[in-house]
This record gives sequence, C-alpha cells and structure tokens, in this order.
Amino acid sequence: MENSKRTCTCGQLTAADAGKTVILNGWVHRTRELGGLTFILLRDRYGITQVVVGDKAADDVKKIAAQLKSEYCIAVKGVVAARNEKDINKEMSTGAIEVEAQEIEVFTTAQTLPFQIDEVRQKDGTVVLPNEDLRLKYRYLDLRRAPMQNHIILRSKVTFAVREYLTKLGFLEIETPTFIKSTPEGARDYLVPSRVHPGKFYSLPQSPQLYKQLLMVSGFDKYFQIARCYRDEDARGDRQPEFTQIDMEMSFTDRDEVLTVTEGMLGHVFKETLGYELPVHFDRISWDDAFDLYGSDKPDLRFDMKMQDAAFMADLADFNAFKAGAANASKTIERHKRSGLKALVVKNVADKFSRKNIEALEAVAKTYKAKGLAWMKIDAAGKFEGGISKFYAGKEDEICSKLNAQKNDLLLFVSDEKWQVACVALGAVRKQLGKDLNLYNPADEFHFAWIIDFPYFAWNEEENHWETEHHMFTLPQKKYWDTLESDPGSVKGDLYDLVMNGYEIASGSMRINDPALQERIFEIVGYSRERADKAFGFLVNAFKFGAPPHGGIAPGLDRLVMLMCHEDSIKEVIAFPKNTLAQSPMDDCPSYVDDAQLKDLHIVCTEREGE
Amino acid sequence: MENSKRTCTCGQLTAADAGKTVILNGWVHRTRELGGLTFILLRDRYGITQVVVGDKAADDVKKIAAQLKSEYCIAVKGVVAARNEKDINKEMSTGAIEVEAQEIEVFTTAQTLPFQIDEVRQKDGTVVLPNEDLRLKYRYLDLRRAPMQNHIILRSKVTFAVREYLTKLGFLEIETPTFIKSTPEGARDYLVPSRVHPGKFYSLPQSPQLYKQLLMVSGFDKYFQIARCYRDEDARGDRQPEFTQIDMEMSFTDRDEVLTVTEGMLGHVFKETLGYELPVHFDRISWDDAFDLYGSDKPDLRFDMKMQDAAFMADLADFNAFKAGAANASKTIERHKRSGLKALVVKNVADKFSRKNIEALEAVAKTYKAKGLAWMKIDAAGKFEGGISKFYAGKEDEICSKLNAQKNDLLLFVSDEKWQVACVALGAVRKQLGKDLNLYNPADEFHFAWIIDFPYFAWNEEENHWETEHHMFTLPQKKYWDTLESDPGSVKGDLYDLVMNGYEIASGSMRINDPALQERIFEIVGYSRERADKAFGFLVNAFKFGAPPHGGIAPGLDRLVMLMCHEDSIKEVIAFPKNTLAQSPMDDCPSYVDDAQLKDLHIVCTEREGE
Repeated sequence: MENSKRTCTCGQLTAADAGKTVILNGWVHRTRELGGLTFILLRDRYGITQVVVGDKAADDVKKIAAQLKSEYCIAVKGVVAARNEKDINKEMSTGAIEVEAQEIEVFTTAQTLPFQIDEVRQKDGTVVLPNEDLRLKYRYLDLRRAPMQNHIILRSKVTFAVREYLTKLGFLEIETPTFIKSTPEGARDYLVPSRVHPGKFYSLPQSPQLYKQLLMVSGFDKYFQIARCYRDEDARGDRQPEFTQIDMEMSFTDRDEVLTVTEGMLGHVFKETLGYELPVHFDRISWDDAFDLYGSDKPDLRFDMKMQDAAFMADLADFNAFKAGAANASKTIERHKRSGLKALVVKNVADKFSRKNIEALEAVAKTYKAKGLAWMKIDAAGKFEGGISKFYAGKEDEICSKLNAQKNDLLLFVSDEKWQVACVALGAVRKQLGKDLNLYNPADEFHFAWIIDFPYFAWNEEENHWETEHHMFTLPQKKYWDTLESDPGSVKGDLYDLVMNGYEIASGSMRINDPALQERIFEIVGYSRERADKAFGFLVNAFKFGAPPHGGIAPGLDRLVMLMCHEDSIKEVIAFPKNTLAQSPMDDCPSYVDDAQLKDLHIVCTEREGE
Repeated sequence: MENSKRTCTCGQLTAADAGKTVILNGWVHRTRELGGLTFILLRDRYGITQVVVGDKAADDVKKIAAQLKSEYCIAVKGVVAARNEKDINKEMSTGAIEVEAQEIEVFTTAQTLPFQIDEVRQKDGTVVLPNEDLRLKYRYLDLRRAPMQNHIILRSKVTFAVREYLTKLGFLEIETPTFIKSTPEGARDYLVPSRVHPGKFYSLPQSPQLYKQLLMVSGFDKYFQIARCYRDEDARGDRQPEFTQIDMEMSFTDRDEVLTVTEGMLGHVFKETLGYELPVHFDRISWDDAFDLYGSDKPDLRFDMKMQDAAFMADLADFNAFKAGAANASKTIERHKRSGLKALVVKNVADKFSRKNIEALEAVAKTYKAKGLAWMKIDAAGKFEGGISKFYAGKEDEICSKLNAQKNDLLLFVSDEKWQVACVALGAVRKQLGKDLNLYNPADEFHFAWIIDFPYFAWNEEENHWETEHHMFTLPQKKYWDTLESDPGSVKGDLYDLVMNGYEIASGSMRINDPALQERIFEIVGYSRERADKAFGFLVNAFKFGAPPHGGIAPGLDRLVMLMCHEDSIKEVIAFPKNTLAQSPMDDCPSYVDDAQLKDLHIVCTEREGE
C-alpha cells in the first residue's frame, strides 16, 4: 500500500460514510469465510469494523485475506458500503456499514495466542478468564480484551476529570519527591541504597503526607497530586507494592470545606466519566453511629437495614447470654453509652430461612469474635418460633413494637460485653445478608458517605499505652484540647473517612499546626523527643516558622476506579500490576542483578530465594 | 476572632471593594510603624495586601499588631478602604486599597528566620540568595519567595495544559509501573531490594520506554504520562536522581504526526501559561546540517550567525594548518561530503576585539579539541589584518565575496581533519559569542527547532564495534534497510530531537515493530541472543503477537519549565530537589536505617560513609 496510515478508526464509520474510500488500521479480531467471501472483523480501541473481501477483489488481496489469522496487525484500504437492512448489526457502532477491501497490508503477524482475546463465556454467562499469572505474563494481550481497554480508558478519564475540577478551583498540582527519608512508622518502607553515600538509603514514600504539609507551610494553599505511593506490606488481600492516591491538602480551611471540595470533585468525576449524578452532599455518620448501626467504619449503605439496640430485652427474660451484652460493663461501652446487645430485623424472610442458612450466618458472626448468633422467627400468626423464642414467648408485642418487626421477619442478635465486638459481628452478618439477599437498591449504584468524629487515641492493650488511631499530625477536636492528657479515651479527632459501597476510599484530617500541641501528642503516645525528632523533626521544625491551619484528604485512585468498574480487585484497573507475591511474571521482576551492581551500592545479600 | 477563615485572598481586593468587611489570612511580609500607625503587609500566594492598624483600632488589636514579626501566620478582619490618589501603589495588584484592621488573630508565630523571604538585591540589581544547602535545608521557607512561588505555579499550569491538549486529541494517560526489571543498559539503575524474594531486586525506571511500547502492542494507540524517572548518575551538571518527563507514544503514525502533535502541545502550553505565541511548526534541521552550521546537535537558534565551509581557502595560500581540514581525509568527512575547515564571520566587531578577546575564544575552541583558532580582521580599508592575514593578503575580494564578509568583520577559522571536531569547536566559539555580544533576537525569546536524520549507528573506537546512537528500538529509515549490515555508518535513524534555546528538551523516534528487524539490530551491535533476551526479551516477545507501527517522544518537564522561567538549573523549578550530592539537607536523606530494616531485606552494607 502506498500509504497505509489510517484515515479513520474502527469505531467511526456509519451509513453516512457510504461510498467513501478509507484506510483502517487495527487487529484481526476474527475472520470467517462465507459463500466465497472473507469477512474480517478489524478491531482497534475505538471499535470493530467489518471488512469484506468479495468476488471483485484482486487475487493478491484474496490471497492475503486467506492467510490472515487472529491478532495480525493490518491496514485495509477499501470503500465503505451500507449494509442491507437485514444485515445491520445494532450491537456494533459500525454495524450499519462494512468496508469492501481493495488493498490489505500486513504490518505484523501474530503467533498462536496463549489465550483468546475475545470473551469466552460459560453457558451460565460467566466469563472465563485465563489464570492470573498467565494474564499477567501476557499482560499486553490481556490488555487487548474489551473490559481491560474500558477500565484503563475510564481510569485515564477519571484522572483528567479530577485535575480539571481541582485546577478550576485553584489547586496546584505539585510533585513531591519519591526519594525521601525513611521514617519507620506505620507500614514498612521500601528502601533504595545510595551509591554515592555508602550505607545510606532513600525511602520510597508511603504517602506524600509530610511534604504536602510542608507545602502548606510554604504557602501553596491548595495542593493536589495524583501520587504514586509505596508500602512493603505482606501479601494478603488486594494489595500492590505501588499504588496511586489523589493527594490533596488545603490551608486556611476547615473540615467542611475539605468535604465539600471532595464531594464536588467526585460529583464532577462521576458525571464526566459515567454520566452518573451523585448527590451534592454525602451523608455524614459519626464513627460511633457507623459501628452502632452498621457494625463497621466502612458500612455498605446501598441497603438500609440498620442494627438496633436490644438492651431492653435483657430485662424481659432470664436469658443469660443477653445479660452481659446489655450491661454497661466495659470501659468501652460506658464511653459510648451504648450496649453490647444488638439486633437485626431481616424483613419477610422467616419462611425462606432454614436452620442451615442461619448456621452459615452464625459462622460469619463467629469469624468476627461473636460467641454466637441468637435468633428467632416471627411466624404467620405473629408468634416467635425457633432459636431463643422460648425465652420470649408472650413478649411479642413489646419486642416487635420496639424493634419494628412484623410477621415473617427473622430476628438476629449478637450479645457481647464489648459493644464494638457485638456491632462488628452483627455488622458482618448484615453485610452478608445484603449480598445473599441482594438487598442493594438498584437506584443507588454508588453510595458515598462520610464517617466523622473518630476516636483520636486507641489504647494499645499489648504495649499498655495510648497510640493515635490515625497519624500523629491529626488535629484533636478543639473541645478536647484541655483534656487530652486527663481523658485521652474520650478525645475525638478532626478526622474523616469517605466510604463507598462498603469500602473506605479516602481518609483525611485537619492537621496540627501548633508545635506545642504537637509536642503534647508526642508525649501522650510516649514518643521521646529524640524519637520524634529523628522521624518528624523537619516537619515540626517547619511549624516553628508560621504554619497555617490546614487539612486534607487522599482518595485512593485504584480503589475508586475499581468500584466504578464494578470490579473487586484493583489489579483489574492497573495496566501492569504485580501478582499477590509482588512479582511481575511478564518481565520477571523482581530478579537477581549483577554482582557489580550490588558492589556499586555497597551491599551484599545474605540470602537468595530458594537457596 | 469568632470565625477567622478568609473571605478573600491577599491578591484580590480593588477599589471596588471599598467599604466591605473582609477577613484575610496570610503571612506577615513586613511591618512598619509610621506616625503612630502600624502598617502590615500581609502575603499569601495570590498577592500582598496592606493592613493598617490605626488610631481608632481597639487597644488589644494595637497590642497584637505591635508584637507581630515577619512570617507570623495571622488572620485579619477589617474594612476595605480606598487609598488616597497619592498613596496608590501601582506595582501591587491591591495597591489601590488598604484594610483597616478591626481584629487580628495570630494563628502561629515564627522564629527568627535563617534568611529573608523578601528579595535581597545588590546595588547592581543582582538578587542575593542564601547558599544552596541553606536554601534546601529550609526549602519550605525558600519556597515562600516570590520567584519560587511563581515557578511552582507555572509548573503546575504547564502540566495541566499538557494534559488538556493531549486529552483533547484522544491521548490516554496511563500509569506504568515504577517497580520494574533491572536492565543494565544505558545509565545506572536505582535498585529496591525485595523483602519477599531474598536476593532479588526491583529497579526504578530510567523511562517508561518498554512499557509504553507494550501499551502500543495492547492497542492503546495514543498514550502519554507525566512520568517520574530515575537515573543513578554521577553528580555533575544539573542532574537530579529523580526527574519528570512528558512521555508520549502513538500507534499507526509517522514521524510527521509525532512532530505535529508535539508542536501543537507546546503551542498550547506556551499560550495558556505565558501568553506566548509559538510558530505553528518548528524548523527541521538535519543532524548533518546542525553540526555543519552550528557545531552542535542542540544549537542555540536565538541568533543566526552560521558557520561556513572554507575549504576553498586551502588552495588560496600555502597555509599548512588549513590543508588538513580542507582535505576530505577522514572517513567521517567523506561520509558527510563536508570539509573540516570551518569559518565564522563575526559582523562589525573587528575594531572592538582585542588580541585578548580572541585568545579567550581560542581557549573555548581548544576545550573542544581544536588545535587552534585562526583569525583575521577586515580593516576600514577592506584589507586583512592580524592573525593569518599575511597568508591571504590580496585575496580579500574572493574570500569576502565567498564568505559574505565586510569591512570591520572578524573572521574566525577552525581546521581539523575531522569534520565534526572542527564543527564542534567553532560551534562552541559561536555559542560563546552569542552570549558575549548578546546576539539574541529579543523577539525570539523561546526558539524551538527539530533536529532530524540522526546517524543510527556510532563506531565505538575503544571496543571496536558498532553501537546504536539512540536506543535499540529505534527504527532505521526505510531506505537503509537493505544496507544495515553492509554499510552501518551511512544508516540514518527515524530519530528526532527537539532543541530549545541551545538545550535538548525532547528526544524521540519511530520504533521497530518487526521482530526480525529487531534481531538484525541486536546482531549488528553484537548483542548475543541470550543478552538481548535477558534484557528485552519480554518486549521482543510481545512483538510476536501483532505489533503496530509506532513511535513517540519524551519532552523533559524539568528542563522545559526551567527554560520557561529563564533559570539555568532545574532545581529552581522542583519543589524539593536534591543537592548535587543527591542529598536533601532538609530531611537528611539518604540516611542510615535500622539494622532490623536491612535484616528484613536480606542485605548487609559493606561500607558506611565516613567510616
């Protein structure tokens, strides 16, 4: 072909283009022979166009067409022809036309593929994917699959929409260093040995936290960065050695403004990328309420079903298991003035739930440290039956009225002397029911809420001292400033998490800007001045030169996009992720390196894997 | 103050706001007492507003005002007052007003500063800066200085404009991994020891090159990323361990399209951020011409003064030094059909240039391996004088006509049997003259040009083999495909550099997408299949599954912004750079880490700095 550069994409042509001569570039998605004709589905990231090599095609074109195989990369020159009405494929954007090939050029051929690019579905509609390591080994082919193309394209659109919104508000995107000082607090750091300074190491940031706070000290006022972060964590769950967060920080601000900016940003992102309208403001739920009502600080709010306090039931019968939960026995319970006897009313399922179903739920509750899951059903006559019903026979009216329960409902209870244990266990049951019964509100595809008023300190039982729930730069709420030392357990922090569909997708706080207050926090958590200085000295020092009030937040990009794609692993929205062992099967990474490289870095290895 | 949150910034108020009650937040830039009044210049990143604490102010406000020192971070509540005509300061955006303080709240105080935030100027106007390590130690204060604020703000605007332009063209921003396999080609890699896989290492990318090419194999078609890159190079010049590039790659494209997209992007960036109009297209100069005319592959084109071939002069006189240069002696000269006798005509300076001036220029030429710098002047009568004039007496007409020289011009010559040596040396003289004589065209503040048609291979004299000038994935120009092995020295690559004001700011190429052609290149440069496989196997493998024609480019963001700021170090446009020893004095990085951390990583250090 004289000039094989495309004149349009494979997703572009419509009936209005009939008669035009075009050049298409792309991959052979599929070919088929029919009645002496060869049909080629040609694919690029914009769509698929059907190419026909017909009777009238030149012999050499027919010959090339006959040799084409899946995933050959080719150019086709031809004339756009409208399809007959009956041949129109409404599922393809280009389904109204086909291109009659006049010339075909093969850019490059393709070997036999390790797996099919086209979707393979089982009879029940489930998509069959190759195993993960094979997908990752041939990630460049896995990325050709339509769902992966869509995810990566959506991710790109999300980041642009974030930048567009924040830039319009006057935020500056500022790059912070990824070679920083190791501060062995929190998760494990990844280290980079220095060649120039033997024995010394750079650390890769777990987040730009300290640097974005320094930028506030510098007066930049509204900062953001879509920042790569690193955590050397053990392989469990859906973790990656490197991940990306939408890191934000503002000065001369307050909590409400940070939340409002975040809401506006997400609203813009969802509208621009998915055409989905989020509410202008998200509900705010206190940390206490989140546990009390949903048993989690990241509740799934796509369905309502709240847990209820059932302390009143301890007095209605002589059922020992409920006494402990109802009593305000532990320090924790006193603190929250809530009981450890929690109830869940599952509407209209009593006739459907077998003992086996309930045992499965009890197993869930026990995983979360509950001693058991008490239950009873309300039968068609309005009487309790099964489980613990014998203790409460005759109390139907009082209990049903207080818990707002009706005929055919299932009542579930967890009782524990620790309020939080009861909440978490029954909350896990709630979450499981949401999934099992598909309680999700279809009009509520993406449900966001803020969790606020977190406890500032947590008591470390093992080491017998207070520590901060979040990081040590979080501002305690002002009303507790006088009682930080005398009653740390009651202190609430100016902390906020954003939850979405049961996942935490952002965490943030207002920060301390007063060096004296910062010193008090270090003291309460038992940090010596030396330890604090070594780890955070440069930030505390910076605060001695006029630090503004400031605060921020950092939504996780990977998880946000994952949820937008309705996926359940962030690997599905990262172009080249690592497997659960933090390896890349594609490029064999990590790998051994030359001894000369290590010598340059003044290090030797004490062990080699498998040796 | 009840509520101290700002209602407007310190750069916002004009006479139209007179009478309004406002709250400002910012830093005390300067205070001064005058006639019983206190004037406070309050600064934030948007500007400076003058606050007045007058007679009528409450006593406690006066008291606070009296205690304010530089860089205290404060809130001021007050009423906007228009200044008298004579008091209007036209150099401040808020110079038409001042704010009469009613309340002042000190957010945080500031210790004595290590250096002044305000600009300190010498009598000659030169700005006096603290030494670099002090600036970097207190970088958060250095960043408060107006020039640094402007640089960081401009950098943010540049990156947004880049994204805006490329996104509009359908480019996707895709994040590539920063934990990759070490391929010990090119510069030294930074390594990250793996905890989970003892003895193995991740490497930080010198660029996303291989991954962006894989994205083309995946069909993403138009990729970009503002990407952090890492090179462990020796401390010289203006280098940083981590730097940022605007990484781009396109499929189904050709060189012209890559250049056009880049031109369009830069045009958009300059217009949006500086209001500066770049030409729609930049000049294209072949690599041969760049050396022949300017003695450099990154010529400064803000002034014209081209070098000329002066081979004809060797026949005009019996001047031995010119014979070697004029002869087409070496292989290099034959290849380019250009001589090693180069002339530079410096217009109208003969009467100003002393022997000492010329000796200084000769020193420059010798730094670049010239044996000497021959010269003569044309006097007021049109006669040659000084230097080598005795050899050419009487040849004035011929020489002046061929070189287009006139009375009072200075003629400079370098002669070398190697064409490139002569060009480079006289080119350095040209560059020096540009600076010394300030030859820059003031209407040409930013001058871009493309350097194209690079030699593909270079002969490594020491190791006695061919190597590639750029990387090994560059496409040789098609017309040389048949003679790659038989005449490597003549092969031109489909390579292009973008130069700006004498700096290379981008480098790119069309890439090989045919595995067989790639193998030929590996063979010519003497890469065994094993070595090639180990380093690049996964890319070459990917090319076996239908790789599209593709190419790209990667402008350096740091250098681009540096030149836009008229700075001469990239440190001036990076928020938290390292010093020349790759250290950050602010957070003492790199630093020693706990032995436990190293133990986790299965490494020990063989040496500790200074021990």
